[in-house]
Amino acid sequence: MPELRKDPIVERWVIISTERGKRPGDFEEETDVRKGGFCPFDPGNEDKTPKEVMALRDEGTAPDTPGWSLRVVPNKFPALMVEGELGRRGDGLYDKMNGVGAHEVIIETTDHNEDLADMPLNRFTDVMVAYKERINDLKKDSRFRFAMIFKNHGRVAGASLEHSHSQLIALPEVPSRVEREIEGAKRFYSYKERCIFCDIVTQELSERSRLVTENPTFLAIAPYAPRFPFETWILPKQHMPRYEDGPREIYESLAQILGEVLQRLNKALKNPPYNYILHTSPFNDPHIGDVSHFYHWHIEVMPRLTKIAGFEWGSGFYINPTPPEDAARFLREVQL
Amino acid sequence: MPELRKDPIVERWVIISTERGKRPGDFEEETDVRKGGFCPFDPGNEDKTPKEVMALRDEGTAPDTPGWSLRVVPNKFPALMVEGELGRRGDGLYDKMNGVGAHEVIIETTDHNEDLADMPLNRFTDVMVAYKERINDLKKDSRFRFAMIFKNHGRVAGASLEHSHSQLIALPEVPSRVEREIEGAKRFYSYKERCIFCDIVTQELSERSRLVTENPTFLAIAPYAPRFPFETWILPKQHMPRYEDGPREIYESLAQILGEVLQRLNKALKNPPYNYILHTSPFNDPHIGDVSHFYHWHIEVMPRLTKIAGFEWGSGFYINPTPPEDAARFLREVQL
Repeated sequence: MPELRKDPIVERWVIISTERGKRPGDFEEETDVRKGGFCPFDPGNEDKTPKEVMALRDEGTAPDTPGWSLRVVPNKFPALMVEGELGRRGDGLYDKMNGVGAHEVIIETTDHNEDLADMPLNRFTDVMVAYKERINDLKKDSRFRFAMIFKNHGRVAGASLEHSHSQLIALPEVPSRVEREIEGAKRFYSYKERCIFCDIVTQELSERSRLVTENPTFLAIAPYAPRFPFETWILPKQHMPRYEDGPREIYESLAQILGEVLQRLNKALKNPPYNYILHTSPFNDPHIGDVSHFYHWHIEVMPRLTKIAGFEWGSGFYINPTPPEDAARFLREVQL
Repeated sequence: MPELRKDPIVERWVIISTERGKRPGDFEEETDVRKGGFCPFDPGNEDKTPKEVMALRDEGTAPDTPGWSLRVVPNKFPALMVEGELGRRGDGLYDKMNGVGAHEVIIETTDHNEDLADMPLNRFTDVMVAYKERINDLKKDSRFRFAMIFKNHGRVAGASLEHSHSQLIALPEVPSRVEREIEGAKRFYSYKERCIFCDIVTQELSERSRLVTENPTFLAIAPYAPRFPFETWILPKQHMPRYEDGPREIYESLAQILGEVLQRLNKALKNPPYNYILHTSPFNDPHIGDVSHFYHWHIEVMPRLTKIAGFEWGSGFYINPTPPEDAARFLREVQL
């Protein structure tokens, strides 16, 4: 069983893989992109993944056989284990618990070479709806307090398989990055009685210098203080605390704008490696309580163009060589 | 003038380089390690760096000429500018100020091919003392609140020149990572009236399972909840809030243990890329005040063996495949 351990000073949680513990020699070239080789996500290889927890399938086809267009399976090498009790306990000064959590893979396409950015709108929408459905399912498990959806695209961004996929990790603790957003948004709300994300939406739609694109439901912006060059955030224009609460139209609109942002990044930066992450409201957390008045879900897209070095690790300050107003202009000017 | 901008939600500062703003095509292979080529840090090339602010020199040699054994110069491509007022101001919802700060390079050796880990103790000590002297000098500038010392070793860790060097950035804001440590240490102190770092030292010296090495003044440990495999922290055994306050013996003892840790990492992991960072008490900060009862300076050494992907960026959780007890044992068992 992996362990969740908490740093006693900054209260940062880490997941320690106690079972497949890596020895010194194990770190040389671990990535297995399998260009052209065997791929466990290709149709016909369904028996090479754990059993599917959800799939969009042709009628009459059996689970874990071909006939699907999107498939969600547990990660074969999960960072956390889905079975077991939390077992919170002390260790002298320190705190730990069992590494309980869900770790799933959303296989977005049957086509080994298809890029999410180039998918037709209906299948891109299916991916966005799959996120919603998996979050809604995992919320029912009272051990979990947060579900993180993320995508690693390209080797530099941490992808270990090239077949297009996203991941979901459900956690028994709200991650610190989300907690900080909630704290900041709560502070703003208690002062102004407004959602800070809604105020950002208003200012960006009015200034327009950091606006990358918009549609009736969403806007995409270069944030005011981006960590990374060409970092782009997508936010609903209307206040919406939870990703997983919308009707299908919302996810179609999201698929349109996220697809367009990825296409613009691909054209401007020649298919860069990237990560994107979804931040939505926590659930089942007795300490955090109701955040629905001031938290506002959003997606952060981070092209991986620069190296993170000692200064960033030590400070939490980032050095960004591209002003967001320039990045937004470059992305707006891309001809699609 | 670069800008310092604050994210309004999480209050994270970023440095935006407005002058040498990078365009989309500028990100392909920017690193210039100059293996065997021209090196501005080699003796004889002193005119290729900005004028030195400190040097250890043979008597009678002039500044910015050969005859030095260690040299500190402003960074030729600084992230921040040392001249100017802070100019704190609002921008609608947002906050920014001028990118004022010092950015210096500590050239640790005249020998282009010498590795810090292999330096003789007296010159390694000189490097540690240079850190102290530069911090003490920059503290006099009331615009600055924190000085971050860091080292990037190897291309993956962000080094752009291979000649052994460290860097110093003095900042007008206390970085969030240090602020979180101070908040956590203060919380512990107000509850226990003890320094949390001192309690960690006590527990680690008693348990010994995460102890990498020790000498009379310092210990090196794999921390209980490390973000990275083989992450190693060095702490003074006695309570000591400020790095820059010690007599020369302290820095000699530090040079011994840091040198030994780097040698152990080099042997166990075959000369990995690494970063190390120094966290010491802030200065001149009216909001933070006196931290001397509960803050305890330390160095964090982070070999760069794993990739940081979407999950880590989005959550602040880290997945570490090597339990610290295993890492410490591997490092202890290295034959030096």
